[in-house]
Amino acid sequence: MYRTHTCGELRITDTGKVITLAGWVQKTREFGGMTFVDLRDRYGITQLVFNMETNAEQCQKARELGREYVIRVTGAVAERSNKNPNIPTGDIEITVDQLDILNPAVTPPFTIEENSDGGDELRMKYRYLDMRRPPLQRNLMLRHRMAQSIRHYLDLQGFIEVETPVMIKSTPEGARDFVVPSRMNQGQFYALPQSPQMFKQLLMVSGYDRYMQIVKCFRDEDLRADRQPEFTQIDCEMSFVEQDDILDIFEGLTKHLFKETLNVEFSGDFQRMHWEQAMAEYGSDKPDLRFGMKINCLKGADCHHGESGDAGTLLQTLPGQAFPLFAESEYIGGIVATGCAEYSRKQLDELTEFVKKPQIGAKGLIYVKYNADGTIKSSADKFFDAAALQKWAKVTGAKAGDLLLILAGKRDKTLKALGELRLEMGRKLELMDKNQFAPLWVVDFPLFEWDDETRRYYAMHHAFTSPKPEDVPYLDTDPGKVHANAYDLVINGVEVGGGSIRIHDSALQTRMFNIMGFTPEEADYRFGFLTNAFKYGAPPHGGIAFGFDRLVSLFAGLSSIRDVIAFPKNNQGRDVMQDSPAKIDDLQLDELGIRIVTSDE
Amino acid sequence: MYRTHTCGELRITDTGKVITLAGWVQKTREFGGMTFVDLRDRYGITQLVFNMETNAEQCQKARELGREYVIRVTGAVAERSNKNPNIPTGDIEITVDQLDILNPAVTPPFTIEENSDGGDELRMKYRYLDMRRPPLQRNLMLRHRMAQSIRHYLDLQGFIEVETPVMIKSTPEGARDFVVPSRMNQGQFYALPQSPQMFKQLLMVSGYDRYMQIVKCFRDEDLRADRQPEFTQIDCEMSFVEQDDILDIFEGLTKHLFKETLNVEFSGDFQRMHWEQAMAEYGSDKPDLRFGMKINCLKGADCHHGESGDAGTLLQTLPGQAFPLFAESEYIGGIVATGCAEYSRKQLDELTEFVKKPQIGAKGLIYVKYNADGTIKSSADKFFDAAALQKWAKVTGAKAGDLLLILAGKRDKTLKALGELRLEMGRKLELMDKNQFAPLWVVDFPLFEWDDETRRYYAMHHAFTSPKPEDVPYLDTDPGKVHANAYDLVINGVEVGGGSIRIHDSALQTRMFNIMGFTPEEADYRFGFLTNAFKYGAPPHGGIAFGFDRLVSLFAGLSSIRDVIAFPKNNQGRDVMQDSPAKIDDLQLDELGIRIVTSDE
Repeated sequence: MYRTHTCGELRITDTGKVITLAGWVQKTREFGGMTFVDLRDRYGITQLVFNMETNAEQCQKARELGREYVIRVTGAVAERSNKNPNIPTGDIEITVDQLDILNPAVTPPFTIEENSDGGDELRMKYRYLDMRRPPLQRNLMLRHRMAQSIRHYLDLQGFIEVETPVMIKSTPEGARDFVVPSRMNQGQFYALPQSPQMFKQLLMVSGYDRYMQIVKCFRDEDLRADRQPEFTQIDCEMSFVEQDDILDIFEGLTKHLFKETLNVEFSGDFQRMHWEQAMAEYGSDKPDLRFGMKINCLKGADCHHGESGDAGTLLQTLPGQAFPLFAESEYIGGIVATGCAEYSRKQLDELTEFVKKPQIGAKGLIYVKYNADGTIKSSADKFFDAAALQKWAKVTGAKAGDLLLILAGKRDKTLKALGELRLEMGRKLELMDKNQFAPLWVVDFPLFEWDDETRRYYAMHHAFTSPKPEDVPYLDTDPGKVHANAYDLVINGVEVGGGSIRIHDSALQTRMFNIMGFTPEEADYRFGFLTNAFKYGAPPHGGIAFGFDRLVSLFAGLSSIRDVIAFPKNNQGRDVMQDSPAKIDDLQLDELGIRIVTSDE
Repeated sequence: MYRTHTCGELRITDTGKVITLAGWVQKTREFGGMTFVDLRDRYGITQLVFNMETNAEQCQKARELGREYVIRVTGAVAERSNKNPNIPTGDIEITVDQLDILNPAVTPPFTIEENSDGGDELRMKYRYLDMRRPPLQRNLMLRHRMAQSIRHYLDLQGFIEVETPVMIKSTPEGARDFVVPSRMNQGQFYALPQSPQMFKQLLMVSGYDRYMQIVKCFRDEDLRADRQPEFTQIDCEMSFVEQDDILDIFEGLTKHLFKETLNVEFSGDFQRMHWEQAMAEYGSDKPDLRFGMKINCLKGADCHHGESGDAGTLLQTLPGQAFPLFAESEYIGGIVATGCAEYSRKQLDELTEFVKKPQIGAKGLIYVKYNADGTIKSSADKFFDAAALQKWAKVTGAKAGDLLLILAGKRDKTLKALGELRLEMGRKLELMDKNQFAPLWVVDFPLFEWDDETRRYYAMHHAFTSPKPEDVPYLDTDPGKVHANAYDLVINGVEVGGGSIRIHDSALQTRMFNIMGFTPEEADYRFGFLTNAFKYGAPPHGGIAFGFDRLVSLFAGLSSIRDVIAFPKNNQGRDVMQDSPAKIDDLQLDELGIRIVTSDE
């Protein structure tokens, strides 16, 4: 027998018991004639004590233990004289009678501690050692807890877990598929699913009513910082539902998860915000609501300040002055940084640099300091008098001591830039507490996005998303105006889930494919089995998918998904621990009927 | 709102309530001025009634409904005059006020009933319709129930669900890997895992102590009747355990599953049988213990009948007669078919044909009929007198009225043939009740199998299985003699799970690779990251994997796994619904740096 207890289990009430423990040597230290060993396993740390006077042989053995040795000890539980209140086993220690080395260990290339001394690359190569560290263990146990909790909740709600296939047909739309050459059908390929979308819709056609699965999905994309080629989705679909039914169920799931795993409770319903409003007030379709700092419109169709149009007195320049930036801009908007009127030249310059970065793309930044003493200082002082600047304060809600930051330009782009600036100010002012959670539903997304390059419409959510019934008349005349029965769950500025009510009418689905520029043949080749299925009695249905990696990392208070995945790949899609992908035998290539023709040959 | 209730929910106590239901039209029938519709969903069937006299418009609409139309109805719950005791909703019907057709349906190509009129091929092509049938719905709901139950049980036992990667390194040993060409690392490939074996062992090295996952695995094999290229495994691993710990935990899981999903309880522990005994008594490493009919040794090392060796009187031929088959055979064994002494010439000929089939491979069959009247008739009458035949009866336990069936030849082959003959007799005599379950553990498998063709040893379980400590001395001298810490869970002759205690000593692991004929370079290329990991403090560990598809099909009383999988592939590895695998674009091939070179080009 290797153990009677785990290293996290023994308490003062166990004093006197003779027990056996097994685990890893966290550290050893000598103190007079005593040797102390911290023995670690998944469950905790227990102190072992060896006494040179009473048991020289075992104590001598203990002195030769190295870090991460795997050992087994038998001894009696004793009360510690020097208690450690920081760990649950801190009141006791084990007086060891017998020590067995189960497996020695080479010294690890970095420390196995809360904060390791190992660099990223090294820790990825020795992932199995990195995963011994408490933060990784906490993350993976949180992930486990969440997965159980999700399935349990959905099971009670009548959802059935159905496994959808991993080797499917390639129907790329959006990202690239990973493909698998078939040996038995040479020249043909399976694809790995980007999501089980079509299968879950088929399950609704099959009458399964409520489907759920925590499932791996795959996208062969050029990897940005925090993407993985394989990722995990909480994938769900329901029949005979409308949008609100889905939001209600999955709001319930989300609240349940927060309560069960973090003991966080929300009072009342999650906010539901129209996509248009999110864009106008936060410059983002995934606003972080942990802080306010809404965008205020100073010019343009989003203005609600009661001024008599753009030509009102709000933007009235000083006599003889013209301010072309404002005059020529379709849109002007500003955010108020509370209490930042004291910002220095340097700080303001940094903000200007920030908004001028290519990925933000603003031309410049106008600021107005509403000083605590009632004076006003603005980068546009030359063009506007104090009365005008006071009007801006009124419209934006800026108070004495605040800083107003203004951008101008084309509406959509300027709103996005203001959204980024808002987040930057949120970071600077530390308004984004990772222990605070601000969930909301963003609803009524546009159905299509126009792509200038390929000159066609793309489905913003995906090709099976239904239009709002009231917008169907615009489908042919002005597709860009059509809104969708689509929704995202956003928490702290992170899109954790999204879904839609699907089209269940095969004629409407065909029309959609047409708008997206598929020929009937293409549409049939890619999606034929689905549109065909719809002819045999498809129920109204809709669903949602959550990014599980992202959700766990949000719950864990992390900014990256990498450390909530046991064996992640790096930014080149490589597993540096396994050294994969790798070459395969020529024989295997022959069997598959493929040949490698890389550019360097 | 689409519905207030499901079609399986309403009872006599709901009479008078106005409700809304939605579902599929199972069938319609007219009866006088009334039209009855059976409305179906996943939860049940509810009868709808339309009255031409009181609501002609709706009744007319109902008369035009076709099979599988998706409809919504609103009406009052009423007591039925003509109750149907076979369904839970059989006491009530809905007097419909309002009928809406949500989606019409083309007539399905086969009936959606308990037993369909559709052939296999057709039902596979329209899998989404086949899955509406009650047997498929029951199977997939059973599968769901089992999955939840398994994870819940293991969670309570402290197992952590960890997702292992799907795109890994190709390390073929045994079956072929499916591979995935990498676009970002042209000329290199990922493989899909045949099992997460190495990852779960790494999780033990990482200290996760107890791991579980219900996970897809992949094997590119030539598909036999009941294999799928992707299949699902219940995959588990534990640290600081010995064989008995694992058997205890997973016997607990199995009992829990039987109790929770089938309400079947087992008294006492599952039988544990040595592999040698299983082979000697049942001619199989997965004996079906629903019936006895053990194999009895008449000659050879397996004999325990107390006769003085092979040359004893048991096989004494009549004076002047020689029976070379027996004399020259290494092994002779027989099974007793109780009450089959009356078997006809034709029936005995069929059995002879059966054992002579190439996959069984016996040369012929000797029978002895111990007739109810005390006479004996045997195909070997010419060579043995009644006294000898009576001795055979004593050794084999044959009684008056029984039939003794004897095979002779090389030991292992003859035992396997007898095992097959035993199963055949079990089928003929209907001794294999699918509602009876006979579980057992087969333990102490050989560590290696010798392959004559490649002239090397292969790991019988897999390369990481540990030898029995007492057999380690034979590793170098006689590997075939070494037994393994390996075990299978067998139920009703089906191997539902198997596992082993692993090697945790990297030196022993290296020795194993050497015995299996890997050069150090090969071993390092394939398994280097695992053997390297073992140097940093690997705990003793072991695990098990259950074939989940097989387990569900056993629980469902099916002989095939296909109907416990939502979207299976056919014997050519094709999904005939999706028509996959399929060709992909040349552009995609270019991006991957591969070219197709099938034999027909």
